[in-house]
Amino acid sequence: MTRRIKGAEIARAITTRVAARVAETAPGGRVPGLATILVGDDPASDVYVAAKRRAIREAGMRDVHHHLPATATQDQVAAVIDALAADEDVHGILLQLPLPAGLHPAPLIDRIPVTKDVDGLTTASAGRLARGERGLRPCTPSGVVELLDAEGIELRGACVAVVGWSELVGRPLAQLLLHRGATVTVAHQYTADLAAVTRPADVVVVATGVRGLIGPEHIKPGATVIDVGIHRTPEGLRGDARTDELDGIAGRITPVPGGVGPMTIAMLLANTLQAAEWDAEHEAVPA
Amino acid sequence: MTRRIKGAEIARAITTRVAARVAETAPGGRVPGLATILVGDDPASDVYVAAKRRAIREAGMRDVHHHLPATATQDQVAAVIDALAADEDVHGILLQLPLPAGLHPAPLIDRIPVTKDVDGLTTASAGRLARGERGLRPCTPSGVVELLDAEGIELRGACVAVVGWSELVGRPLAQLLLHRGATVTVAHQYTADLAAVTRPADVVVVATGVRGLIGPEHIKPGATVIDVGIHRTPEGLRGDARTDELDGIAGRITPVPGGVGPMTIAMLLANTLQAAEWDAEHEAVPA
Repeated sequence: MTRRIKGAEIARAITTRVAARVAETAPGGRVPGLATILVGDDPASDVYVAAKRRAIREAGMRDVHHHLPATATQDQVAAVIDALAADEDVHGILLQLPLPAGLHPAPLIDRIPVTKDVDGLTTASAGRLARGERGLRPCTPSGVVELLDAEGIELRGACVAVVGWSELVGRPLAQLLLHRGATVTVAHQYTADLAAVTRPADVVVVATGVRGLIGPEHIKPGATVIDVGIHRTPEGLRGDARTDELDGIAGRITPVPGGVGPMTIAMLLANTLQAAEWDAEHEAVPA
Repeated sequence: MTRRIKGAEIARAITTRVAARVAETAPGGRVPGLATILVGDDPASDVYVAAKRRAIREAGMRDVHHHLPATATQDQVAAVIDALAADEDVHGILLQLPLPAGLHPAPLIDRIPVTKDVDGLTTASAGRLARGERGLRPCTPSGVVELLDAEGIELRGACVAVVGWSELVGRPLAQLLLHRGATVTVAHQYTADLAAVTRPADVVVVATGVRGLIGPEHIKPGATVIDVGIHRTPEGLRGDARTDELDGIAGRITPVPGGVGPMTIAMLLANTLQAAEWDAEHEAVPA
């Protein structure tokens, strides 16, 4: 029986730890603040942002929210970001994607100061990650590493296959794993023989958006499978891996839902707290 | 008989092309300028910088040189960089490493504007590379990709093993190869079974600084071996691969010397020209 990695539990432990730390330092007058910017009325984005805001409040952090209409211009969104960048009570800025058509996300994201980049999506954050310098890491990749750590999986010397090369997950995840001493292979749509790449791996992370891509032929017995995919089907939520078929083959697997999903918000909370703590450090150092 | 990849010839073709382009645009009044900063009196650095300066002049570009004493302070080096950053006739700034003990290279490197970062070593450049955004790439990694392209080796769908994870070569090279659609594995000192990682690869790039690390057991027949290593031995210069033993096994190999080595200066020239051209574009766009 393949062990299910309990993402919801691991996420809860993280949010509990964050809330406790916030409670410790709040009396001193410092409450970490997250500003979320939502542009337009995409119903899914609405739900995601609401969940993030609720989690922030439950952790005792400050919830600052800006909801711009779908007709907002590039300059208007930029102005909101710039104002939040200057706001000392805001330690994290999150621009919810996707933006309405007609807006260009990359230049807006790059207006977020690297110190407040809690989604870790700015080019500056990508540079810090590439260099192994201190910085805020993208939430889903760092959530994957937290899951592996919580399960006691030794990354140094491990063979890890990252299937999927997105900016959001695959590429930053490969960097994080490499920093931990794993031997990392990145596979993607142009990979000639995917099973040949994944089969030797101790850990296979799949984040491709291709439902049911990974099956028994891809996984060596006992390997860990981390499934980042999420698809709504008539039978319910499914991932990029065929979980049922991997039962008894994989040593461990993240269920969908309840695996990687809950980790993203937990890491967002951790990043917001981290941003606030680094900000406080900065103030403590004499100019 | 394993084909030797003629790095010196490929490098010459690049520098010829750069010089021709410089000659085309010089009459219009724009001559690309490279500023080299040398701190102290390390004899090897002296030789390397002299070679770079000579190549720059031979390509018709402007050679600006600052030689600071070994006693220069962090602030003094910073001031030189800042002055060059503001100099409109300087399109590239190169800080020759290593610096004398007592100086911190990273903060100095990061003072170089990303637009003039011809060594591609700033955190900002690392971010652009990670994102696949336009930018100046580190010279040795981009030289390796140029060699593979010159040899007509198809990178999309190829299995490439990058042995060595340095900031200077391995990591940026892995990014470049991934952008080209290769399936990339990064191996290093913690990799449990190196031969298992390299043997399936179509291309093996070794940049570890470990002399003679790669031998027949690491290479599948017909694979391409790119040797970035360079070691001075009593018998002469040697690389990280045991070239003699790979003869007849590898399909192609870069000799040491004369393989990767000549490419680094060629790419520096190409980067300097590129920096000047992007700078001219910028000026052409109305404010």
